[in-house]
Amino acid sequence: MRFCEDDLIANFFLPLAGPAALGLKDDTALMTARPYPLAVTADMLVAGVHFFADDPPELIAQKALRVNLSDLAAKGAVPVGFLLSIALPMDWTNDWLGRFAGGLAQDAQEFATPLIGGDTSSTPGPLTIAITALGDAPRFIARSGAALGDDIYVSGPIGDAALGLKLRQDPARFEQISMQAREAILARYLLPHPRLDLRGVLRGFATAAMDISDGLIGDLAKLTRASGVSAEVAIADIPFSAAAKQALSLDPSLLETVLTGGDDYEILFTCGQGFTPPPGISRIGQITAGSGAPLFKDASGGACVFPSGSYRHF
Amino acid sequence: MRFCEDDLIANFFLPLAGPAALGLKDDTALMTARPYPLAVTADMLVAGVHFFADDPPELIAQKALRVNLSDLAAKGAVPVGFLLSIALPMDWTNDWLGRFAGGLAQDAQEFATPLIGGDTSSTPGPLTIAITALGDAPRFIARSGAALGDDIYVSGPIGDAALGLKLRQDPARFEQISMQAREAILARYLLPHPRLDLRGVLRGFATAAMDISDGLIGDLAKLTRASGVSAEVAIADIPFSAAAKQALSLDPSLLETVLTGGDDYEILFTCGQGFTPPPGISRIGQITAGSGAPLFKDASGGACVFPSGSYRHF
Repeated sequence: MRFCEDDLIANFFLPLAGPAALGLKDDTALMTARPYPLAVTADMLVAGVHFFADDPPELIAQKALRVNLSDLAAKGAVPVGFLLSIALPMDWTNDWLGRFAGGLAQDAQEFATPLIGGDTSSTPGPLTIAITALGDAPRFIARSGAALGDDIYVSGPIGDAALGLKLRQDPARFEQISMQAREAILARYLLPHPRLDLRGVLRGFATAAMDISDGLIGDLAKLTRASGVSAEVAIADIPFSAAAKQALSLDPSLLETVLTGGDDYEILFTCGQGFTPPPGISRIGQITAGSGAPLFKDASGGACVFPSGSYRHF
Repeated sequence: MRFCEDDLIANFFLPLAGPAALGLKDDTALMTARPYPLAVTADMLVAGVHFFADDPPELIAQKALRVNLSDLAAKGAVPVGFLLSIALPMDWTNDWLGRFAGGLAQDAQEFATPLIGGDTSSTPGPLTIAITALGDAPRFIARSGAALGDDIYVSGPIGDAALGLKLRQDPARFEQISMQAREAILARYLLPHPRLDLRGVLRGFATAAMDISDGLIGDLAKLTRASGVSAEVAIADIPFSAAAKQALSLDPSLLETVLTGGDDYEILFTCGQGFTPPPGISRIGQITAGSGAPLFKDASGGACVFPSGSYRHF
């Protein structure tokens, strides 16, 4: 027999709850007054849109939380808690929900971000997860601060998750790449790694920052638009994983997927001249004047234009 | 042609945004450090579960926000902003979303509660709305503070919204009641009125408080359980509207709907002896010792037992 709402909360979600949750008895959390401004972000994930309904429930839960933590990471914020609203489809089971909550509990601990509240509902539609995460933001890094001449950086390899999604949608296209590379890109699609480790670098040096969730090309365009500038990026300087390099060498047309696909959850940021990036951080280009979409240049110096994020090579 | 996500945000949601939204450009809001502890609440509404998909979009939007404001009101908190995550079904139109955002804008202004962030998505399922609301809570009133001998109060008439829902599900049962009464209960179902006006009373005198969203009987049981006490309520002292009185006199079996149905969004609270309630606030009973479900007594003093919120008369 499935749990009723009260039992469900007591059994699955109470173990994740922090002090602000007040035992999840009040429908309202109570956070102590914070010493800093508060960064607040919300992301909604829908089965069949943002993940596959039959993905492991632990990973669905962790992805739903981590995309929010990634937003906080990009702002240099430290997560302090989250609220989970979940609409369960008609066929949910105690076992499924136990695994979902177990995955979430593991992340709540790993990221020191307790559950503080939320809501549960049923839905005649697909599983829908809405998380709101809160974080202390002593120095919030907006998207709008990039200035002419700033260098543009990314915090890690681009495109693995988009390749992982493409592999699930069109496995035939990836038959030539190694099992190890396939596993690597699938794992990156399933589970983002929010770059909370970068807060020192971002707070200390970044003029603008955002996480890359909708593809490097589209997201850089958002950053430059918010900042009232443009940009030039050398595709040869964009870091790719060994798996992505292998996929690209076998099928160069995957470059479009790599640069415009989503789910990277690395940080895209800009810094003034003279910043020395720590290991793992790659300079990919520079902020330029103007208001056009960023220019992405190939190895021969030719310009690749990607209007509204979609790939078109001239 | 329907708006893309960026245009949709710029056209419909930017007009509702407060300073903390940073122009809705950052995927993350930034609230200034608050002087008080922060009350945070989240509620998710699903079409076909919490409202009818063909209800006026303005009212769907306002209900989704107001159920959250009602949670804050019950804690004596002052709303300062909200985040909206919305999953739109495949057939949404600009007109529908314009009306939805218009209703929300009206409430954001009326309740001085700007939009500060959120997320938009598509869904193959029903319209799903997840709102998180934040409020300053100088004195948070938990559910768990009710003490032996405290009086139990409700802030207004009980059961109208539940009757309104019943009328929509089973119109034949309401043929005898007046048009005016029908309109009154339908309106109460469609649009809650969060009791933010009660914060002075609650902060000054309440020992425990919650909003009544799942029916008086079930919600009082939650309050007494959280407080480790029980209660006695005189059904004759529960305030009913003229419309509810009319419905009950024509069909006394509707008492079950009135006391166990949801969507009242009045405040249920307890106070120590000696509190003089302002006009409109009704004393309905008293906190007693024990851990059993609250006793509801009829006019003759007979006990009506409502195990787990469902009505059974002895």
